[in-house]
Amino acid sequence: MYIGGIEAGGTKFVCAVANQELAIIEKVSIPTTTPEETLAGVFQFFDRFILDALGVGSFGPIGVQKEQANYGHILATPKKGWTNFDFLGSLKERYDIPMAWTTDVNAAAYGELKKGAACGCKSCIYLTVGTGIGGGIVVDNAVFQGISHPEMGHIFVKRHPEDTYEGTCPYHKDCLEGLASGPSLEARTGIRGENLPADHPVWELQAYYLAQALMAYTLILNPEKIVLGGGVMNQPHLLEKIRQQFTKLLNGYVEIPNVDEYIVCWGMPDESGLMGTLLLAQQEIV
Amino acid sequence: MYIGGIEAGGTKFVCAVANQELAIIEKVSIPTTTPEETLAGVFQFFDRFILDALGVGSFGPIGVQKEQANYGHILATPKKGWTNFDFLGSLKERYDIPMAWTTDVNAAAYGELKKGAACGCKSCIYLTVGTGIGGGIVVDNAVFQGISHPEMGHIFVKRHPEDTYEGTCPYHKDCLEGLASGPSLEARTGIRGENLPADHPVWELQAYYLAQALMAYTLILNPEKIVLGGGVMNQPHLLEKIRQQFTKLLNGYVEIPNVDEYIVCWGMPDESGLMGTLLLAQQEIV
Repeated sequence: MYIGGIEAGGTKFVCAVANQELAIIEKVSIPTTTPEETLAGVFQFFDRFILDALGVGSFGPIGVQKEQANYGHILATPKKGWTNFDFLGSLKERYDIPMAWTTDVNAAAYGELKKGAACGCKSCIYLTVGTGIGGGIVVDNAVFQGISHPEMGHIFVKRHPEDTYEGTCPYHKDCLEGLASGPSLEARTGIRGENLPADHPVWELQAYYLAQALMAYTLILNPEKIVLGGGVMNQPHLLEKIRQQFTKLLNGYVEIPNVDEYIVCWGMPDESGLMGTLLLAQQEIV
Repeated sequence: MYIGGIEAGGTKFVCAVANQELAIIEKVSIPTTTPEETLAGVFQFFDRFILDALGVGSFGPIGVQKEQANYGHILATPKKGWTNFDFLGSLKERYDIPMAWTTDVNAAAYGELKKGAACGCKSCIYLTVGTGIGGGIVVDNAVFQGISHPEMGHIFVKRHPEDTYEGTCPYHKDCLEGLASGPSLEARTGIRGENLPADHPVWELQAYYLAQALMAYTLILNPEKIVLGGGVMNQPHLLEKIRQQFTKLLNGYVEIPNVDEYIVCWGMPDESGLMGTLLLAQQEIV
């Protein structure tokens, strides 16, 4: 049995084929250019296998309502040529097999729940903090989405009294992504995030904003665990700063599990998304 | 067939008995004093009927995880005598019938979904804006809650540039409840909310903060509809101000239904909660 997975990101597509134990047999990385060119690479890779199922975790926004005409499509995106592209339809045309379809971050949340840092839980939130900020939600062991998928990186947060930076989000200026993504770190300091020393004052702002977002997710969704990933989380000191701010801001208002177990870093760095697509594909085989 | 419902609020308990069409036959309002005294009134009312099921929508925080020891209890509350009170257990001891147990605002959300402003939807959020700000969530026709129930009135929002008020929330100062509840309106202006003229500048702040919260709920949960209720929403101009701010702040980032149909006022003013408890009780009869 072969199971395929595609983590379709804005800069690259990572495709993998796994066996029935979900051990990855082969993996390839394809740059994200036009849909035609990128999909040609995808087909070239998967054509060599007879797949039983395929899971796709795509950059968004995407259509996720099965009864809607835009299901399986990429929606309005600045990425040239991709708006309204029938991504899932193109895959189905090529391979007549069961497919799972969700966002890259929902796939990562599912991957972390089943095989990563939220293993043993029935619900979790996964938040990636990198070039952008995005989140995925799993509730009762299934990907959660309403009439659309979460875009939880764009909520507003209260400003730190010492912060005057206007924010990088092209839609909302100073939403969470505008104030706490990788580009905002660099825009504020002139230094790329990975080169910023651990004692730089900007990390306090970073933790302050992220902690507020985790508090909002907690007060609304009450998951069993929050898993943080993405490039910015590679700063080992940041997790602890976020936990401290979270505890201070929540101020004991609701009971949560021990914060060190509640807010954690990803268990499969850079691989939760791909693993999630394989796991979701496996679910499609009945 | 008789179905009972209790909307257990912090100042009063409203109890009702309905027939199988959920038409209310009798209703009583009991002041919330001590658990013993209040429950004595509740028993006096319901003892006169042979109920088939009872639904309870209680003030919080409450224990909602069936497998936990505090299920059915009131948790830490400033209301004297109620902390750790086994509310559901006391009812079960008196009446050996199926019971539904959730928060007052979850019951209201369910009531609005089934018989009110969100009729025909499968998911909705209900937010009450009054002495406090609290919300309930329905997803796939069922009350939604994670390891605890939502406390979504306490998320943080970005401050309006012209607002210097510190906020009334005893836990978080300037969270949503601290900046936009009834008491904060009065603390800011010295005038009780219901007496504030429609052109008072404070309504702009009010709409700005509530719109941010609705945007957060939208980006995280993507419900089909958001229903607003509570005393502050009795100001007829406020709904439109919130819709305008919501549209401006969201800035087209995600597709939502027409805002006039997406953000609406409650369909059963002051009665959604009680109706929700009856509907939830009815669900318990199999």
